[in-house]
Amino acid sequence: MKSAILSVGTELLFGQVVNTNTAYLSQQLNFLGIDVMYHYTVGDNPQRLKEMIEMAFEDCDLVITTGGLGPTQDDMTKEIACEVLGDELVLHQPSLDYLEDMFRKGGRVMPENNRKQAYMPSRSVVFHNDAGTAPGFALEQNGKIIACLPGPPREMTNMFQKKLKPYLESLSDDCIYYRMIRTFGIGESQLEMELLPVINGQTDPTIATYAKEGESAVRIASKRKTMEEAQSAVDGMLEEVKKYIGEYIYSCDDEELVDVAAGKLMDKGITLSCAESCTGGLFASRMTDIAGISAVFDRGLVTYSNEAKMQELGVSAETLDKFGAVSEETAREMAEGLHRVSGSDFCISVTGIAGPGGGTEEKPVGTVFVGAHYKGETHCRKLQIRNISRKYIRHITVMNMLDMINKLI
Amino acid sequence: MKSAILSVGTELLFGQVVNTNTAYLSQQLNFLGIDVMYHYTVGDNPQRLKEMIEMAFEDCDLVITTGGLGPTQDDMTKEIACEVLGDELVLHQPSLDYLEDMFRKGGRVMPENNRKQAYMPSRSVVFHNDAGTAPGFALEQNGKIIACLPGPPREMTNMFQKKLKPYLESLSDDCIYYRMIRTFGIGESQLEMELLPVINGQTDPTIATYAKEGESAVRIASKRKTMEEAQSAVDGMLEEVKKYIGEYIYSCDDEELVDVAAGKLMDKGITLSCAESCTGGLFASRMTDIAGISAVFDRGLVTYSNEAKMQELGVSAETLDKFGAVSEETAREMAEGLHRVSGSDFCISVTGIAGPGGGTEEKPVGTVFVGAHYKGETHCRKLQIRNISRKYIRHITVMNMLDMINKLI
Repeated sequence: MKSAILSVGTELLFGQVVNTNTAYLSQQLNFLGIDVMYHYTVGDNPQRLKEMIEMAFEDCDLVITTGGLGPTQDDMTKEIACEVLGDELVLHQPSLDYLEDMFRKGGRVMPENNRKQAYMPSRSVVFHNDAGTAPGFALEQNGKIIACLPGPPREMTNMFQKKLKPYLESLSDDCIYYRMIRTFGIGESQLEMELLPVINGQTDPTIATYAKEGESAVRIASKRKTMEEAQSAVDGMLEEVKKYIGEYIYSCDDEELVDVAAGKLMDKGITLSCAESCTGGLFASRMTDIAGISAVFDRGLVTYSNEAKMQELGVSAETLDKFGAVSEETAREMAEGLHRVSGSDFCISVTGIAGPGGGTEEKPVGTVFVGAHYKGETHCRKLQIRNISRKYIRHITVMNMLDMINKLI
Repeated sequence: MKSAILSVGTELLFGQVVNTNTAYLSQQLNFLGIDVMYHYTVGDNPQRLKEMIEMAFEDCDLVITTGGLGPTQDDMTKEIACEVLGDELVLHQPSLDYLEDMFRKGGRVMPENNRKQAYMPSRSVVFHNDAGTAPGFALEQNGKIIACLPGPPREMTNMFQKKLKPYLESLSDDCIYYRMIRTFGIGESQLEMELLPVINGQTDPTIATYAKEGESAVRIASKRKTMEEAQSAVDGMLEEVKKYIGEYIYSCDDEELVDVAAGKLMDKGITLSCAESCTGGLFASRMTDIAGISAVFDRGLVTYSNEAKMQELGVSAETLDKFGAVSEETAREMAEGLHRVSGSDFCISVTGIAGPGGGTEEKPVGTVFVGAHYKGETHCRKLQIRNISRKYIRHITVMNMLDMINKLI
């Protein structure tokens, strides 16, 4: 199946917001085995929108629109969809009931123009919106389908997952099942090399690799007659994949590294403290993004100056003098000192050169030492991160800190 | 002048990357007084690209493309541009010399297919690319202009600023000058209300307001016969604007709040330490994003637990017991304790409830206290932030901390 994605919204043409909807939908459609041929963005221009939908239907079977479902005169997506696929808008009572109820609960009277949002194409499958006011829908004629979703990303992704995705799955006799395997510590090209024996000659399940900043992912997908067959094919292949790259895998369910690390700490009730130099609080900030982390996160120290390292963590002046602030010895003393001060089960430390200044021939920008004190032992990892930018170095450093937590507990 | 933006890239249709180029170009073009009518994204499909350019030229004078200027067979943007505007590709010797020199300096022999990148439309204005290998260009015929830029955002924005923007400015007899005024502590609608007396009846300079997350901006623009006239009109209007909203302005040159706050500290050599609870290191992390901040940033403490607040900062058990960890009293004791420990000139503290859990009727999620100890005095600001999300509350809290630094020094 071939598809096109059309975004409706003047704010996009003004450049006030970045269009994240199309990237999200493109990826999701590709995962469902649906090709995306093009993206199109238009403002409040019904004529252009109509032309574009007609043009898309010349070589696509599916057109997905986002936006233009609001209550104002400008919002014309539904009207245009009806014009193109020969239908008319009729009152959809359940949508009206829901809208009126929503306003009533909010203690407000529903403005008259919100009624417009309850009028849907007569032959359409209506998609209830439990995250906003605008319902969406899918309308089909002679094998051509137009699906209209609301514009706000939260409402759009919610409706896609709950309504449009199952709708699209129902159109196919085949069942697609996939898993996204996340890895750390191996680049995309090396990942591909390692997986060559399983990738070669493979038609189903398919294996594809993806690069993210500082990590790589593997998608294993299968299309079969039943969901059970597809699942079993994917899970069988996953066991094969693990034989080659098992040591790098941190999630088989598309989780973020920080969620996996924080989840482990919380599950096992392991308390955590951190002492950061070059990352300057970024590690603590990422960790404390996780709701509920306060149960195990005790404290973080950002010891930027040498004085702070000595005073807060008891790093010795001799160590700083002899090996430098950026050294394995300092990282170790930071982690051990943090353990003395906080008593936390897991104490992680980091010191390095994030740049742009501060590098030397011996310790260029991107030299980082991560220390970890856990169960009476202190571990240290030396990193030499590519000097792409200060931001990049700090990001990769935090990924390594999370990976160390993951690996050690 | 009306324009369309066309993005070329299969990776966009796969959803592997979010298209930030179009938002950037749309905003920049709008700032130059050029309307953007639509965005279009296509993969390696020359026929569609050609159709789309022709369709765009039906009601636009300017088409800007990004991507498809690479060395491979798939990269067809230049060929299509020539087809549409009746030109042919010829060797552009300066581009070839630059490419060969670049490879030589890198110690590599230039692959044969990179020669393709030095062939440009014969009548075009060639845009040198000092951030990559693909030159860009602008080609005109009968008042229709196509401008082709490389796809990687870093190369694209660099070429836009250095080459395409001046080219577009040169097409107009008028000069456009604008300033972006950044404010904090006032919403977009209130900003508009306050500025009504200067906005009303104003044709040049024009005044437009923009909302960003947690802050608002005002753009003052003027289009005149000379740049001096335009500048003087904008600067005159800025003085007017200051009379109404001066107290909220933190930058008249589109700077970020964190850059302004960090700049002040560095300029004046004021040392800084921070003690964070609900923001969990986010403030320290933002501050230490700034290169060179190590000259004034001493240390940050993330005192998540009550024990850490007492032990690291000397907050009294009575205060925590009587007023709670989230209270003005605790924020004050944190800032003062931090000053005792660190001796830093400016000591800022924060404690609050970022949610989703932890709220009470008296102190709902979003209740935050910021403390600041500076020049022997301790200040406190109470915030009641809308409970949109944990991320939002943490972001707005950090903005307020930066604003306090800005206001106090």
